[in-house]
Amino acid sequence: MNLAQGPLESPDIADYRRYPVSAGLNALRPRADHLEVEWSDTRISPFHYLWLRDNCPCAQCVYTVTREQVLEIVDVPADLQPRQARIEADGALRVDWPDGHVSRYHPGWLRAHAYDDLSREERLRERPRSRLWATGLNEHLPVFDYAAVMKDDRTLLDWLRALRDTGLTQVQGMPTEPGTLQHIARRIAFIRESNFGVLFNVQSRADADSNAYTAFNLPLHTDLPTRELQPGLQFLHCLVNDAVGGDSLFVDGFAIAEALRREAPEDFRTLCELPVEFRNKDRHSDYRCLAPIIALDAHGAVTEIRIANFLRGPFNAPARQMPALYRAYRHFIALTREPRFRVERRLEAGQMWCFDNRRTLHARHAFDPSSGARHFQGCYVDRDELLSRIRVLERER
Amino acid sequence: MNLAQGPLESPDIADYRRYPVSAGLNALRPRADHLEVEWSDTRISPFHYLWLRDNCPCAQCVYTVTREQVLEIVDVPADLQPRQARIEADGALRVDWPDGHVSRYHPGWLRAHAYDDLSREERLRERPRSRLWATGLNEHLPVFDYAAVMKDDRTLLDWLRALRDTGLTQVQGMPTEPGTLQHIARRIAFIRESNFGVLFNVQSRADADSNAYTAFNLPLHTDLPTRELQPGLQFLHCLVNDAVGGDSLFVDGFAIAEALRREAPEDFRTLCELPVEFRNKDRHSDYRCLAPIIALDAHGAVTEIRIANFLRGPFNAPARQMPALYRAYRHFIALTREPRFRVERRLEAGQMWCFDNRRTLHARHAFDPSSGARHFQGCYVDRDELLSRIRVLERER
Repeated sequence: MNLAQGPLESPDIADYRRYPVSAGLNALRPRADHLEVEWSDTRISPFHYLWLRDNCPCAQCVYTVTREQVLEIVDVPADLQPRQARIEADGALRVDWPDGHVSRYHPGWLRAHAYDDLSREERLRERPRSRLWATGLNEHLPVFDYAAVMKDDRTLLDWLRALRDTGLTQVQGMPTEPGTLQHIARRIAFIRESNFGVLFNVQSRADADSNAYTAFNLPLHTDLPTRELQPGLQFLHCLVNDAVGGDSLFVDGFAIAEALRREAPEDFRTLCELPVEFRNKDRHSDYRCLAPIIALDAHGAVTEIRIANFLRGPFNAPARQMPALYRAYRHFIALTREPRFRVERRLEAGQMWCFDNRRTLHARHAFDPSSGARHFQGCYVDRDELLSRIRVLERER
Repeated sequence: MNLAQGPLESPDIADYRRYPVSAGLNALRPRADHLEVEWSDTRISPFHYLWLRDNCPCAQCVYTVTREQVLEIVDVPADLQPRQARIEADGALRVDWPDGHVSRYHPGWLRAHAYDDLSREERLRERPRSRLWATGLNEHLPVFDYAAVMKDDRTLLDWLRALRDTGLTQVQGMPTEPGTLQHIARRIAFIRESNFGVLFNVQSRADADSNAYTAFNLPLHTDLPTRELQPGLQFLHCLVNDAVGGDSLFVDGFAIAEALRREAPEDFRTLCELPVEFRNKDRHSDYRCLAPIIALDAHGAVTEIRIANFLRGPFNAPARQMPALYRAYRHFIALTREPRFRVERRLEAGQMWCFDNRRTLHARHAFDPSSGARHFQGCYVDRDELLSRIRVLERER
């Protein structure tokens, strides 16, 4: 079982992941359309013949330079059955196909991709989970040091995991030169551009094209709900903050959605099911997006909140559902105002918020622009980039 | 009824849209939680009191500079009822609220946002619809001239509507200098960056990090199915094409999905419901996205295809659903290979494909890199930007 040791070097499955052998192959039982595998820990996993042929890792089926599949499964017969299947001396599964093609599967890889109910549940349990928070986060806010994040990959990884799991972090000790933001954002990936630019300046402006660029109080919201994909991470870097007022306010949208699910399941369902239109328009753009306020993933977990009262279009639900929609919407907004959920801080020069824009709703108290200068810079990086970066950093450990 | 004329100049509802008065207000009937409006064409529309209060367009409720709402509907009583509602001399609806607040609604705006069943169906019917195509598009391909698109907004609008509705276009007469692409892309909006860059070069490379950068045949696919939001528009600009082979191939993924819905509804449903993982990894990135191959919008219309055999991870469906998933997947791929759907063309230097990457699957025949130079440049622009640009251009006509 020498395959059980360390990372796999075999070019066949060199996909930068490790597949430790937690259980060996004990027995194989060929069935009509699948091979039943019994593992050394007694687990039973069916592997359909089409699935096995589809996942043959040989250099003919997968181009080794790109690690991308060349075989197309539609090119084999629908009723494909192997000529023979056996366990090899090194613990691999070997399958001989009628056309002479031979496939070999590493047992660690096979176990990692088994799709019996138990294996699927196991993998689901291992997924990173959101750590919900409430006002208590005021005392436990994940705070990171700029210099450490910039030079040390381990600190970077800690920061990115906090962003993924907690969804609200602060970075301290940042230079206050405009543009510093992009250096730290690029530690993750390229920046997501929008009609507001690559970096955007949050300052009170007479010609504001968004309430964000006024001195108003801004209610709790996500940024760019008017786009199909709301930006994943939002960065807000404070260059100057000498104005009276303007403190930052955050709530965990996932915690609020879960409270709603628990306390008023019908309101929760309404916000998952009835789409709402968000709109943002100026002289040069007219964005509209129709989507529900709460989005769930395939497993029913809350994966996104989309809300910004000032960008919401008139509700356009069927008339009979309108009272339920208003009840649910008002309920959600009322929850965002409850003290139990709120985290409140003043951001000082050299500090930066970085948070999951699709989860952590943010707000700003009104400020007095005549009382002093206030200048923040912001930018976005998408969740895909965050998760990819985490995987690559974890790979290198 | 002077409000009926032309675009509305009133700052109250200056949202850059026009609200012609197709019917006037005939009668108002106050009900328990809504106002029943009877129109001059006998249509009846309920407007809930909360909805009316929520959509008050006055300068106190909407900040006129940004046209964004300041009022939050949670700040009025749930059982709000007006003190009075009446039709004014100019045809507007006037509502007086118990706290003295007065709201006035333009009848054209009100009709445009009415949510009785008839009004909602009417608006649904007016939405732009995809024009499905098959191999016949070989003779009717929408082709545009580069110079005209660059200088004339009317041609630009025609091109963008073809992209929205047909999803496959060609632009001719382009300079063959590298980077030309970004000038025409920026006629729409900023370019969407990815890990492959802002502009990407499609050339055969020894160190390929994607099968796209080899000389291989590439099966029909969408780009970046490994990201939550697949890029909306894909541009492919031919700078040089002296190699033998490498012709472009397209199919309308929406037409194929509709054929599947018609010919094998169970397979269609399987591809809408069972999510599939797409993966792309190299030394610096590791993207994964779990999503169904066919996505539907809130009305059941096909809105996205996500497919790339070479980026697909092992299927991870429950074992009992695995045979159905393979049947449906093979069926879809088999349909993409049917001659009835295929549009095939060789792109020459100075020509550019631009297509809806989430609809129009593209492929490339293998080419012989030793037979001559072949260099394409590509980039992406998202659907949000396309649709916003169309709305702004339509506004100006």
